[in-house]
Parts: sequence; C-alpha cells; structure tokens
Amino acid sequence: MTATRTLSEFLVDSRYEDIPADVRHEASRAMLNALGCAIGSARHETVEAALNAVMPFAGSAQACIFGRPERLDALNAALVNGISTHVLDFDDTHQRAVHPSAPVLPALLAYAEWKKTSGRDLVHAFVLGVEAEVRIGLSVFPEHYDIGWHITGTAGVFGAAAATAKLLGLDVQRTAWALGIAATQSSGLREMFGSMCKSLHPGRAAQGGMTAALLAAQGFTSSERAIEAPRGFAHVMSTKFDPSVITTGLGAHYELSKNMYKPYACGLVVHAAIDGCIQLRLEHNLKPEDIESVELSTSPLVPELTGNRAPENGLEGKFSVYHAAAVALVHGAAGEAQFSDEVVRNATVIAVRDRVSITASAQVRKLEAHVKLRLRNGTVLEKHVEHALGTVERPMSDRDLEDKFRSLTDGVLSVAEAARVMDLCWRVAELEDAGELARATVPR
Amino acid sequence: MTATRTLSEFLVDSRYEDIPADVRHEASRAMLNALGCAIGSARHETVEAALNAVMPFAGSAQACIFGRPERLDALNAALVNGISTHVLDFDDTHQRAVHPSAPVLPALLAYAEWKKTSGRDLVHAFVLGVEAEVRIGLSVFPEHYDIGWHITGTAGVFGAAAATAKLLGLDVQRTAWALGIAATQSSGLREMFGSMCKSLHPGRAAQGGMTAALLAAQGFTSSERAIEAPRGFAHVMSTKFDPSVITTGLGAHYELSKNMYKPYACGLVVHAAIDGCIQLRLEHNLKPEDIESVELSTSPLVPELTGNRAPENGLEGKFSVYHAAAVALVHGAAGEAQFSDEVVRNATVIAVRDRVSITASAQVRKLEAHVKLRLRNGTVLEKHVEHALGTVERPMSDRDLEDKFRSLTDGVLSVAEAARVMDLCWRVAELEDAGELARATVPR
Repeated sequence: MTATRTLSEFLVDSRYEDIPADVRHEASRAMLNALGCAIGSARHETVEAALNAVMPFAGSAQACIFGRPERLDALNAALVNGISTHVLDFDDTHQRAVHPSAPVLPALLAYAEWKKTSGRDLVHAFVLGVEAEVRIGLSVFPEHYDIGWHITGTAGVFGAAAATAKLLGLDVQRTAWALGIAATQSSGLREMFGSMCKSLHPGRAAQGGMTAALLAAQGFTSSERAIEAPRGFAHVMSTKFDPSVITTGLGAHYELSKNMYKPYACGLVVHAAIDGCIQLRLEHNLKPEDIESVELSTSPLVPELTGNRAPENGLEGKFSVYHAAAVALVHGAAGEAQFSDEVVRNATVIAVRDRVSITASAQVRKLEAHVKLRLRNGTVLEKHVEHALGTVERPMSDRDLEDKFRSLTDGVLSVAEAARVMDLCWRVAELEDAGELARATVPR
Repeated sequence: MTATRTLSEFLVDSRYEDIPADVRHEASRAMLNALGCAIGSARHETVEAALNAVMPFAGSAQACIFGRPERLDALNAALVNGISTHVLDFDDTHQRAVHPSAPVLPALLAYAEWKKTSGRDLVHAFVLGVEAEVRIGLSVFPEHYDIGWHITGTAGVFGAAAATAKLLGLDVQRTAWALGIAATQSSGLREMFGSMCKSLHPGRAAQGGMTAALLAAQGFTSSERAIEAPRGFAHVMSTKFDPSVITTGLGAHYELSKNMYKPYACGLVVHAAIDGCIQLRLEHNLKPEDIESVELSTSPLVPELTGNRAPENGLEGKFSVYHAAAVALVHGAAGEAQFSDEVVRNATVIAVRDRVSITASAQVRKLEAHVKLRLRNGTVLEKHVEHALGTVERPMSDRDLEDKFRSLTDGVLSVAEAARVMDLCWRVAELEDAGELARATVPR
C-alpha cells in the first residue's frame, strides 16, 4: 500500500460519525476565523486586482465572493476567496506548518453554493481536506519549505482536491487521481513573500484542487502514486519524505486539533511579546505616560524577522516588534487597526516604541517571551509568556474568536449580519444547505 | 540587470520588424502543425473529460475549442486547447527541450478572439512567447527535467505569460510581474507521463500564463526577479541555473528557428528507430512474417522513456519503442492510427513487437538509431539513421506538414475547411483579425 492509495482509502471510507465532537467544533472555529479574515479584506487592493482580472472570464453566478456583492462561477470564486482569506496573513496556522483553511474552505463553500450540500458534509469534507494537506505537507517538512516552497500553496492544493473529492463522492481510484492532478499543479514560491502573489497561492490551490477533483470525476486519469513515486510530488519537491507521516494513525487523531488562530494581526513570532504587554497593561491599568522602558527577551527570530525600529507605514509596522509592543501597551490591542498607517505614525505610539529594547536568546522559544517594564515611578513589572495566546497550549476562546471576527468585519457587515455569520458557523453542521453560510457573508 | 528584468525589457522593446522572415515563416509552420494536432484530437477522450469538467463553470462564448462547436471564455478555451494540442504527443518540439506551441498558441488565439488582434501582433507575440519559454527552460536544463519536472508545463507557463503580456502591451515592470506570477504557478511532474495529466500540463500553462499577464495588467504585484532569486524558479526547481542562456543574444537569433515537427505520433526519442524500420521495410518490401528479430541500438533515453514491453492500449503504445518499431515494420507508418487500442492489441503487431530488443548506448545520440533486422531467411539488414525525419538537420517540408495536417484533420474538417485553415496559417501575418484562424478550425 502506497501513501497516495492509503490516504485515498481513508478519505473514501471516512464517515461523518467518525469525526470527534471536538474536531467538528474546531471546524466551526476555523470557518469563523477564516470568514472573518476574508470579509475583512473584501475591499483589499489584492482582492480588487484579482477580481478585475478574472471578471471578464467568469461563468454564471454560482458562488459569492465573501463580503462582496459579486457572484462568479464556483472555480473563480474559489480563487478570489482563497486570496482574500489569506491576504491579511491573519488566517489560521497549523501548529507545525500550513495555513489550513485558506485553500480548503473557499473551494468547499463555492462547491456548496453550486451543488446543494449539507452542513454535515461540508464539515466532514473540511476536516478531511485539512487532514490531507497537513499530512502531505508535514511528510516533506521542513526541507520542502527550506528549499523555497510556500507550503500553503504546494500542500494546500491537495487539501482542496481531497475535500472536493469527498463532496463529489469519488471512489478510491478517482480520489487518487484527484490527488495526482493536484500534485501536478502543486506550486508557489517563497520568493513571492511580500508581494500579492503570496495570497495568490492559496487562491490557486483552492481553484486547482477543486478542478482536480472535478476532472477526476470525469474520468480524467492521473498517476495513482503521485505523492510517493520517484518523479512524484515528494521526491521532486523535497529532499526529505516520510510517508508514515501521511499514513500513520489516520482517523486516530485529526490535524485540525492542532490548529492555531492569531489574536494579533502580524507575524506569529511577535505574539508572545504583544501578549505580555497587553496582560501587564490590563493588570496594572497602565497609561502610556507611565512607561519608562520596555525590555523584551525573545527568540532570535524576533529581531531577525521583525527588527524594524522605525516603521513608516502599516505594512512595515507588521514587521516591527517595537511597534507591536508599543500598540499593545498604548491600545491594549494589536488588530488590523493597530497596523494602520495612521497608528504607526501616531506620536504617543512612537514615544513608547522608542523605549522598547530587545535581548534575543536562543534559550527563548519562538512563541515565548519575557517582558520587563520599568515605570516612571520606579516600579518594575515582569511577565513571562510561556505560550502566546492563540497557540494550541493556550488557545483563543470561542469568545476571543468572536471578538476577532467582529473587529475584522466591522465596517463591512452590520452587527446583525456579523452575528448571523457567527451563528451559522457555530451550528454549520446542522445546516440543510451549507451554501447559506457563504451567502451570509454578503452585506445587504 | 537580472535575467527577469533583461528578458522583460527585450519583450517590451521588441518590434515586429525585428523578427526575420524565416522566423515568421516558422511561426506559420508551427501554427499549422499545432492546429492540426488540436483539431485531430478534438474528440479525444482527454479533451472530452476536460471539457465536461469545466463547462459548468465557463464564462461567455469568447473563444472556440479547436475543431469543436463549443465556445468558452478565453481562459477555459486556453486550457482545453492546450490539452488538445499536446494530447497526441504529435505537436512540435524544440531541438533541445520544451514543446513550444501547446502552451503559447492556445492562449494567444483565445486572446485574439476575445480582443481583436492583428495577425502581425499574433505572430510577434507567438515568436516572443516561444523565445521566453525555451530560454527559461534551457537555463535550467537538463537538471530541471532530470529531477522530474515536465518542462513543457514548467517553462510553458512563462511562454504564455510573455506572449499575452506582449498583446496586452504591458510595460517592463508589469511584464516582470507577469513572469513572476507565471513562475509561482510553474508546475507539472514527469510522474504523470502515461496519464491524461501529461497534456493537462500545457493546458494549465496556457491558462495560468494568460492569467498571469491579465493579473499583472491589473497591478497584481509579484517579485521582479522571480526567475533568478534564491527562492525563485531556477534555484527552487533546478540544481543548475545559467542566466546567460536567458540573456545572451536576445534578438540576435530566435529559438523558434530550432523548432522540430514530428512525422510520427509518439515521443521523439523513438523517431529514429521508426524511421529506420520504415526505410528498411520500404527498401526491401518486408512482410511481418519475414522478420526473425529486430535489434535496436539507441540512446539510453529510449528504454528509459519508452521501455514498455507489453503496452495494453494506444496511449501505452506511445511509450513503447517495441510497439513503435513493430508498427513501423508492419504498417510502414506510425501515425495516430498506429497508436490506437486496436492496433496495440493486434496479434501480428504483437508478434513482431515481441521480437524487438534494445541495446542502449551513451554513444548514440537522442535522435539517432541503428536498426539491425535478422530475417527468417538468414539475411541481415542494417540501417543507420543519423538524424530522424523532422529534426532541424532533416526538417519536414511545408508540403510534409500539409500532408500531416490533412491526415490529422481528416474526418473532422472537410477538404475545403482543412485547405482554408492551412491557407490562413501560411498568411496569418496578413490577417486583420487573427481570431479568424481560430474560428476556421471549427467544422460546419
């Protein structure tokens, strides 16, 4: 038995009843988070550009663009919604690698609007799609990523293919073909980080994976060992391949359980520092003028990835731990609003930012931080954040996710519309027509 | 100056008048050959499956499917026509690597039907698209191919992007973005050889490359050094990269001049063996029952790529030098008809096939072969084919290409319709509306 075949059999044999209740609930949480990100970026310039490019070629109005009035054919909708889900870099992250939802959910919701699909089937296919993409991604990780592949694109296409194949009810051979057609479209270079192409990757993965399953359903043949063959995905695109990562314990645990959500609208490495600052501010009711200095002890990755001491705009602010700590202390928050050009240029924020210093140490883990504040009155406050909020060890609560959703969708959806999307996410598995969830993202 | 930038500037600065007359004529030859292949496979099961899969999602009737009545949006037409051009494996081949036309021409003709385009502009963009894909492909060749990449897909996407960018009139920056968006979609695994996915590769390349240019035209940003950056196309997808292959002599010679057309409906590596067998059969009026054994001396690529001793259907027959030599001896031909399921299962053909043996030698070049026949009567016949028919050294004539076109399109187009397509190809540069050429492929 090969990895491709074993995975295909698992996907075909899996029943909804096999999925544990906590994993099903995690699917609701992931959908809520992903839709919040997509709706919140509905008017992002990246989304506008993509939409303008494909609109002249789009087919009938099968599926919505999250948070927008346009309706496109399901394949183009999957592309654009894959882009919008990821473009803020605020979507979910598996504990080890891959942004799981952005390539999978847009394909599934587009499908569900095209062909009526129950909420149960949607949740089931979503869990399986994430399972496929994470396992395939981790089977070649980290070497595959180190070479320069953006794993959310390269593995994501398998997730969208596996999930769509499940909804189409493909048999084992056609499921294997769908994975093969996905494999041969697998792409996405890390060179694109910092350009609009980064979010094109999950968009293309969603569209390509969905296309793969639709082709396989029509008898379009592929290799049946596309993952493990000598000239298949793993050996061509990585120097490491461990097929047991794909095949061991299938159904015994689910990778979606290890999903993480970002409370803060910037790179994960800064989260522990932000977290400590927000906690100290809350516990001691701190004002910006109280602060004499901010001493951060972090992993070496923090200054390496986010060492910009003097960011000049919102995007640069996301790559400045100095700015991130400052807004955490001044605003008690680090959402999209705190990474606007305006806030980055705010005098009060800059005054605190200039008092931040960092000591990097290899003894500090990636999502850990020590924060030491010296106040004007001589008091010294300390906080050790062992695991940042949003990690598997210290997950965001359902309430936290709702707050994040409201904050992201504010200005796009009304309060009532936002409440309705959240409600539909929590009870998605009960929906007779899962397409309702996609349509609920569109403001009146 | 980087490779991406230098190539982009060349593409933008190139004028139609710069293209030598013989290269323009080669464009006509390439188009004639490509359209013959596409029309001849208009009803191929691979094309039917792809069309069935995408039809529900297709947009307005912007562009035709070569040889068929359906009209789809230009992006889906590019996909399906890219598949049909390559599916018989009878399309053109650059002397060193890449099937040049299949990823480029379908994108250009779909564009020309969508937005009126002159024949001059079509020819110009076609020549430039081929230039881009061949140079980028060769800059990483052969290591890139040896790793397991199907270079027609991986390099083809650049060709479609460059050609479409030229028709869109993009500036240097946006042309570089188009190449970058192409780079990050570059894909196609050699594991797929022998399945329908092989022809999906140029189809996806045509569609993805065209999309890349359309996105860039909308200001969708990408890396501006996507080919040469440490985490860009060349370093991620190959162990070798020679940027000078891309940048040296741009405009001084054109890669389209090194284009080859296949007289036989299978992989090039088998052509010299077929050629030798056909010549011996003709010269000695051989009958199948005369043949005791067939000893082929070939390059090591022949058994590697076409080593299937017992093919079970037409497609597998194309990857069997044993079958190819057998039909050359039994039928004196190796056209599409000789690679049908029926002929592959024919007892007479199988009897000869089982008498074929191969000795591979690194001393024998890729398109060279020695054929030694031992007859039942003890006679030994030998033929050394230094350059197979269809090579640059021994090209098919315009007349040969017309014969091939007629043979391929027989049963799809009437004699008059076929004559019209050929006429339009020869004078394509004079057409006011190049879309006429695409529409002429559709039978009444």
